[in-house]
Amino acid sequence: MTGQTREERTTVDADRLHRGLGDLAAIGRTPGGGVCRLAASHDDGLARDWFRARLGEEGLRVAVDAVGNVFGVAELAGPDAPLVLTGSHLDSQPSGGRYDGAYGVLAGLEALLAVRRRTAQGGGKPVRNLGVVSWTNEEGARFSPSTLGSAVFAGLVDADFALSRADGDGVTLGAALADIGYRGADPPPRNVAAYVELHIEQGPELERAGRTIGVVEGNWGTVKYVADIEGRAAHTGPTPMAARRDALLPAAELVLCCRQMSDRTGGVLLSSVGRLDVQPNSTNVVPGRVRLFAEFRAVDPTMLADACARFEAKARALSTEAVPVALTRTVDRPPGAFDARLRDLIEDTAKACGYASLRLNTVAGHDSIPLKAVCPSAMIFVPSAAGVSHHESEFTTPEDLAAGAQVLAATLARLVEG
Amino acid sequence: MTGQTREERTTVDADRLHRGLGDLAAIGRTPGGGVCRLAASHDDGLARDWFRARLGEEGLRVAVDAVGNVFGVAELAGPDAPLVLTGSHLDSQPSGGRYDGAYGVLAGLEALLAVRRRTAQGGGKPVRNLGVVSWTNEEGARFSPSTLGSAVFAGLVDADFALSRADGDGVTLGAALADIGYRGADPPPRNVAAYVELHIEQGPELERAGRTIGVVEGNWGTVKYVADIEGRAAHTGPTPMAARRDALLPAAELVLCCRQMSDRTGGVLLSSVGRLDVQPNSTNVVPGRVRLFAEFRAVDPTMLADACARFEAKARALSTEAVPVALTRTVDRPPGAFDARLRDLIEDTAKACGYASLRLNTVAGHDSIPLKAVCPSAMIFVPSAAGVSHHESEFTTPEDLAAGAQVLAATLARLVEG
Repeated sequence: MTGQTREERTTVDADRLHRGLGDLAAIGRTPGGGVCRLAASHDDGLARDWFRARLGEEGLRVAVDAVGNVFGVAELAGPDAPLVLTGSHLDSQPSGGRYDGAYGVLAGLEALLAVRRRTAQGGGKPVRNLGVVSWTNEEGARFSPSTLGSAVFAGLVDADFALSRADGDGVTLGAALADIGYRGADPPPRNVAAYVELHIEQGPELERAGRTIGVVEGNWGTVKYVADIEGRAAHTGPTPMAARRDALLPAAELVLCCRQMSDRTGGVLLSSVGRLDVQPNSTNVVPGRVRLFAEFRAVDPTMLADACARFEAKARALSTEAVPVALTRTVDRPPGAFDARLRDLIEDTAKACGYASLRLNTVAGHDSIPLKAVCPSAMIFVPSAAGVSHHESEFTTPEDLAAGAQVLAATLARLVEG
Repeated sequence: MTGQTREERTTVDADRLHRGLGDLAAIGRTPGGGVCRLAASHDDGLARDWFRARLGEEGLRVAVDAVGNVFGVAELAGPDAPLVLTGSHLDSQPSGGRYDGAYGVLAGLEALLAVRRRTAQGGGKPVRNLGVVSWTNEEGARFSPSTLGSAVFAGLVDADFALSRADGDGVTLGAALADIGYRGADPPPRNVAAYVELHIEQGPELERAGRTIGVVEGNWGTVKYVADIEGRAAHTGPTPMAARRDALLPAAELVLCCRQMSDRTGGVLLSSVGRLDVQPNSTNVVPGRVRLFAEFRAVDPTMLADACARFEAKARALSTEAVPVALTRTVDRPPGAFDARLRDLIEDTAKACGYASLRLNTVAGHDSIPLKAVCPSAMIFVPSAAGVSHHESEFTTPEDLAAGAQVLAATLARLVEG
């Protein structure tokens, strides 16, 4: 390999990347400067339309599969060649930032185009095709669980199950996708040789270490729960305290218990209750029903299992005949590593591009994790200012965004050349 | 007075009362058999239309004032005579029962008609007019505070303040009333000589005592709070625990503190957190903002003040620079008595009608409380099955409903005859 030369000749159009991020950030823009593009919402549809139009403009082969994953493929090595895939997601949190997901999709497209230009100019001989994808419902903010589109692609979840997931208003993913015209009928690409996802770090490690490129070793273990607490609605005035079946009291205990599990580990175990749905949620009605969403994350599987056991014991202890607490484990993602050869390749490529890299883990889930089930999978991170994410103020500098796209392009170039 | 005779001749049309309650229960009906008629909503508008049509059919003088209170007046004693007023409210909780409010409005109308029939038949000589009213936003479920329409009528709150109250979507009461055609321009009736409100008890005391009629002595003291907790939204994955500013943690502490205040009194002090709004309320976002609605109720003002002082101290202790907790007292209703002469009149009338009564207090707020500011005011209660209210299963037997209406009619007959 003549790495340095190859990296120099695979040049991403950084200006168009920044313009594209600006265009996407205007779709579902929030007053605070972030975006709200819940999966399969009207604005998610507009973002998909924008992306699909770009794929078409560039003459890529477009496919929209049954769960709305959108693929664009450049046939660099003929129709039967294996596929190297990159991408991320266009959906966002209710008040999310402009980089989480959208960056990996757009930079993925620009990296693909850079590799294709290089190939067209006679640089390197591709033995694999190259594709970019936007996965459906990565965030899990509207439909649970998260990384749903990639899980279907990887065969971990049935399409029918995914399409039947309902949001808080009872609208299914299938109906929502049909509404925005993305309940597709195209077969998704198969024969995937590798998946590489570029993403903002969403944590503080790269910034602290002063490094531009993160080579993601693996993912933390994650366990998520839904607690359903059944009380009985009643007037907060005349109903005697002894007669109340207040569903919010055990919920409050679980919120505090969840935090205590982290405190026991000095903050090493991560935990949170991000969502609490109270019914009927009226000032003068005793809460009759609460649904609580809790999660635990850790690198150490023993630490994770211990927290889960204690949390489940707490839920059992709180559960009474009058106010039963039912706990369901909705996600059980063990800690795991990304593909070792891909990690090394990314590290080597970053160095060839002139960037110092840092090995780190991802605490958050990403589509790259389900993809491990079907192909070697890996991730590249760029810094997040102050580690902030899932917030409107999420920020990565244009220089870091361009650097990440450049390293992705060079990595993909090596991969399509085998 | 020839009580017994008068009571026999002032006969409420109980069949029409029951039919009317059935008709109203069909407006905003919930799958569980209750009603959802939030103040100034579409369904509240339909219920108001139904009521206004009934007032018109009966030839009453109809007035809709600036905050949407709907009055129907029978001029039994000429245009300048003082007015005896009865009524309640047609709005409901999000999953409320069919009797809370609607009963007092419909039975009020039937009682008025019974008195007018008696007068027309030459029974008694009225020296006062008689009116029935449906007050706006008694429940406070959509717009805060509760008993808003009656408070404006009583001069305790400016109409402009009431109309500017916004619901959770930012829609003001003024705009919502205009939407349903009930932002009226009629002057409300003045010169009110007395107000008597008939209502279901919403508690278990009448049922336990085996009595049909409750004579309400007075109201418990009530203090309500809104706590605004400001954290910062962040990804529940990569954000280190020490960097999190989780607004849900102090909220959970306040929920439990609220309950502890009751436990300290052996359940004599009533307390609850009925509503908790979490932002952005997404499973994998650290809660950035929480609004919590708490309340305390007690007969003993010292007990109430003590609980409030402790709760406020807890909120101050929980408040930090990173996650400030701001507590606002939104309601401060001292314990108080209803008019002594009216209470005795109701008790005497119930006896004359053949019903054993029970003296009790109302824990819940009612429009009769603000009315105390402008005229002698009192309440009549009928039993609530198992004390249940603010729930779809709220129930009072037809016999008890008819008995309450009969006692109300006989009481009003005495009042209009001076």
